Amino acid sequence: MYERGGAIGIFDSGVGGLTVVRQIASRLPREDIIYLGDTARVPYGTKSAETVVRYAHSCAGILLKRHIKLLVVACNTASAFALDSLRESLDLPVVGVVEPGARAALEKTKTMKIGIIGTRGTITSGEYQHTLQRLDPKVRVFSKACPLFVPLAEEGWTTGDVPAQIAAAYLCELIEHEVDTVVLGCTHYPLLRETIASVLGPSVALVDSAEATSEVVEKILASTDALCTSNSERSLHFLASDAPERFAQIGKAFLDHDIGDVEWVDF
Amino acid sequence: MYERGGAIGIFDSGVGGLTVVRQIASRLPREDIIYLGDTARVPYGTKSAETVVRYAHSCAGILLKRHIKLLVVACNTASAFALDSLRESLDLPVVGVVEPGARAALEKTKTMKIGIIGTRGTITSGEYQHTLQRLDPKVRVFSKACPLFVPLAEEGWTTGDVPAQIAAAYLCELIEHEVDTVVLGCTHYPLLRETIASVLGPSVALVDSAEATSEVVEKILASTDALCTSNSERSLHFLASDAPERFAQIGKAFLDHDIGDVEWVDF
Repeated sequence: MYERGGAIGIFDSGVGGLTVVRQIASRLPREDIIYLGDTARVPYGTKSAETVVRYAHSCAGILLKRHIKLLVVACNTASAFALDSLRESLDLPVVGVVEPGARAALEKTKTMKIGIIGTRGTITSGEYQHTLQRLDPKVRVFSKACPLFVPLAEEGWTTGDVPAQIAAAYLCELIEHEVDTVVLGCTHYPLLRETIASVLGPSVALVDSAEATSEVVEKILASTDALCTSNSERSLHFLASDAPERFAQIGKAFLDHDIGDVEWVDF
Repeated sequence: MYERGGAIGIFDSGVGGLTVVRQIASRLPREDIIYLGDTARVPYGTKSAETVVRYAHSCAGILLKRHIKLLVVACNTASAFALDSLRESLDLPVVGVVEPGARAALEKTKTMKIGIIGTRGTITSGEYQHTLQRLDPKVRVFSKACPLFVPLAEEGWTTGDVPAQIAAAYLCELIEHEVDTVVLGCTHYPLLRETIASVLGPSVALVDSAEATSEVVEKILASTDALCTSNSERSLHFLASDAPERFAQIGKAFLDHDIGDVEWVDF
């Protein structure tokens, strides 16, 4: 049994993981949440496995000092590269976003043809593909790295001609393969959901791993009797390794409400 | 007098500074060059002044261990934020890319209306604006951050409709202000030169700071009697803090020839 009093610790390379905070905060309204965005080293998606693993461990280290009962790796790239290594070395439950997203996609697909979009790191890791095929060997997986989606989302340039053309260029391969389900395999992508959905068309279902991840977090806490039941004023606390004001400003769109003060942390 | 035997040390947040290496290597064919791309922490252009200054000092520290006689800060953002601090603490000539670019722009402009494009960091620093106005108080400067140009250049997506539309959206303000000269205030932007030029039209001159910087390097070495005169087989050595293979692969387009082996360095 994990300590009820601890917070749910969540980290990501930057603001993207706030889409995961949003889902967890909404599903578990009594849980304290502490979030770290590694804005000094963002993005992870273009970097090597070794470097991402190193960064993931230093993020986890910061959160472990803050009294957490469960760790969510809200970054798809860090989930793909560093989850096993974090689980081996940490003595608390560690939840990634890849397996919950993969399971949600398998629940939605009818044709067993699933598309995965994500950063270059996530896609080249093959982690979604391996996870999906482990869960159901009959599935066919088509992957596409979409490196411009992160800067588009961070710039707030999420609708209109330019994002639509970029999305069309990236997604045409998935359309040709006739996938019926696409996993938004990067926490930034839900901000481009409308544009992506309009390019893929109404016959393709989109999966946002954030929602599926929040279900897994609830299940683990419930099964270990670690859910908060009496916290009437839960706290949401935000840390960033660089430019906390900009984190608060951009983060608003990801969290869907004001962030308030952000604490700067150094590594 | 600085040691003739040392190399020219050059650093940048990633591959972009290779456009500066290209100009220096071509102008000074006998000089040894050692280049560090901080690919583990790229980009700098979206990060705060404090963080960029810290990263710049750690890059300089790596190069200083390698026997250099002059340091070039090939990154516009690091030049804008960290040049003074590096000059104060280091005992060798330190050359940035901002002042050479500003001087070159003043030589080209006829209307004294100059546009600056760069990363968010470079533009918000105001460094080009201050430098230009210190050099000639009559100049009028119009600045625009173009955050998507770096990922476009790194993806090799430099021509066609999408980059043209993005460039048109960013550059329309400069066109309205009727600038006659635009400084490519980011080392990535020369790769998008064709697209930028076509959006701005033939009446606008483009300034690439890399060329101007190579002239300054030559002048400083000549004035301190530190130019190499007898190095028949000069060496070009490349270091990267992450993913050296990818650095070599993407870097080719920036350097305009093969890079060969890249050494991985840790901080």
